[in-house]
Amino acid sequence: MTAATSIARERPDDAKLRAGQALVALDMERVNRLIIERLDSPIALIPQLAGHLVAAGGKRVRPMLTLLAARLAGYDCERGARHVKLAATVEFIHTATLLHDDVVDDSHLRRGLQTANAIWGNKPSVLVGDFLFARAFQLMVEDGSLEVLAILSNASAVIAEGEVAQLMTANDPETTEDRYLEVITGKTATLFAAAAQVGGVVAERAPAEIEALRTYGESLGIAFQLVDDALDYSAREVVLGKSVGDDFRDGKITLPVVRAYQQGTAEERRFWRRTLEQVEQREGDLAHAIALMERHGALNETFTRAAGYGERARAAIEGFAPSAAKSAMLDLVDFCIERAH
Amino acid sequence: MTAATSIARERPDDAKLRAGQALVALDMERVNRLIIERLDSPIALIPQLAGHLVAAGGKRVRPMLTLLAARLAGYDCERGARHVKLAATVEFIHTATLLHDDVVDDSHLRRGLQTANAIWGNKPSVLVGDFLFARAFQLMVEDGSLEVLAILSNASAVIAEGEVAQLMTANDPETTEDRYLEVITGKTATLFAAAAQVGGVVAERAPAEIEALRTYGESLGIAFQLVDDALDYSAREVVLGKSVGDDFRDGKITLPVVRAYQQGTAEERRFWRRTLEQVEQREGDLAHAIALMERHGALNETFTRAAGYGERARAAIEGFAPSAAKSAMLDLVDFCIERAH
Repeated sequence: MTAATSIARERPDDAKLRAGQALVALDMERVNRLIIERLDSPIALIPQLAGHLVAAGGKRVRPMLTLLAARLAGYDCERGARHVKLAATVEFIHTATLLHDDVVDDSHLRRGLQTANAIWGNKPSVLVGDFLFARAFQLMVEDGSLEVLAILSNASAVIAEGEVAQLMTANDPETTEDRYLEVITGKTATLFAAAAQVGGVVAERAPAEIEALRTYGESLGIAFQLVDDALDYSAREVVLGKSVGDDFRDGKITLPVVRAYQQGTAEERRFWRRTLEQVEQREGDLAHAIALMERHGALNETFTRAAGYGERARAAIEGFAPSAAKSAMLDLVDFCIERAH
Repeated sequence: MTAATSIARERPDDAKLRAGQALVALDMERVNRLIIERLDSPIALIPQLAGHLVAAGGKRVRPMLTLLAARLAGYDCERGARHVKLAATVEFIHTATLLHDDVVDDSHLRRGLQTANAIWGNKPSVLVGDFLFARAFQLMVEDGSLEVLAILSNASAVIAEGEVAQLMTANDPETTEDRYLEVITGKTATLFAAAAQVGGVVAERAPAEIEALRTYGESLGIAFQLVDDALDYSAREVVLGKSVGDDFRDGKITLPVVRAYQQGTAEERRFWRRTLEQVEQREGDLAHAIALMERHGALNETFTRAAGYGERARAAIEGFAPSAAKSAMLDLVDFCIERAH
């Protein structure tokens, strides 16, 4: 990918998100109300700290997945409330993992705002994360479905495994592509998969259809993460709410690095080992890293892979009859892949 | 309490634990096997890190509560396996909170061994804690009782609230006794209560009997924590696996401090504020703190309070017919109160 195509990718594409957002706007308001209601605690710091992160918002892609999947699967979203409760559950689990991630990564900026650990310190971030995780399970118990509880407790275990696996591949440029895919499947795609899957469960669809929703969510999640990792070497700061090069500075091993390293000369490999393994970085290193990635087409390849997973996501829900929800879910795939803005 | 009675309290009393341990020895072996089985993960660091803590062992008081309560309540412990699964669940939740506690408190020693965070760092400790918490819910889902899931998800939320509350009272010697009791009820007694309660649930006892087991566990937990907090100013190091004065050095506010502060002169209060609020400590401060506690009978009062909760625990299970399990549970009360060795 040349610098020109890199810039061409950097166009806003929120339009692709808008149809879905409009379709579930009322549901999402119910989700937001429920989240605020269930953040409540006599311990004032809990709603304060968790509220900071929840209010910062982001695009609520995960709960949107639950709401859209439930609608696609024919759940009565006007009279029913299960999809709302489970979308809030998914957001609680996601928020808990973000709180812990930011502690683990020692991050100070997320979505353009200071992280909770930067404001309140690591200690309450760890504990409020635990609280949110427990709250998520309380919501599921209220919902009363053991199938949902199984899906989301399994997902939670796999997410934690993915995070530990990521820790262990950190700073190792010899990480293989398979290993990298395992890590992002665990830490990101698993919750996307579960979020979509439970939408099918509340609609009481057949196992094969619930499995199709799971595949859709998982493929979308992998595509989402691949694009995220590529954007860390190409996006403008204002979009990500984090600086370009964050992953580089942290010595994080992502697909663009894996690809550039694999195809690199001995000298280039020495560069990657110095900057990412020993995390000995000098001025100009980030620019050189990006140049090496461009030379080996590593960013382009990452975007191409993402597009492939997007295709898999689209194919997974092919069997569902056309509907506004289905269109929105197809648009969501475009959004995840094209949000290179 | 004089120094002499303080030393008199310091006699081993593990005998009080032995009847219970013998009674559930086979069950506990099954619990240990299940724990090891379910710690397994393709991510090697997970069983390694969690295994370190689980192997360090401690007295397994919480899973023992589940096993004894199930037996007391008439569950078929030979043919059934639910009590074993739920005892392992309780231990997983406990271990998860220990991992996170040690990160939050920056502890380096637990049960006489280096803490996981001291060996592997904070990052994997946070994430493996999350993994264990998720595993606990997976075990409950396998058990299949929504009642158990409700008890332990509620307990998990209250524990996290208690931990955050403790963080907020940290270093504040103006903390009231009520506030202190709220904190230890949340962070310690709630899991004791839930552990005993689920024993009654698997035996399908009437709600009033399950509630009695909950009260037993809660009272025992409060007594246990009160004694723990008093021992931090009086026990010999080898017993606790931590140094006398750990709480003091951390500026932790426990009942002995609250009592000594409340009854202290203006000059004494300045001492407490310097040492615990500003955590400005000099040689001889710990000895002076202990002397002030003795002067105001603060340690004695704490042990007396513990005995009162012990009485409440005994009374709670009065209605159950005599049995070996009941005797062991009464002995367990003695153990928690008299383990001032």
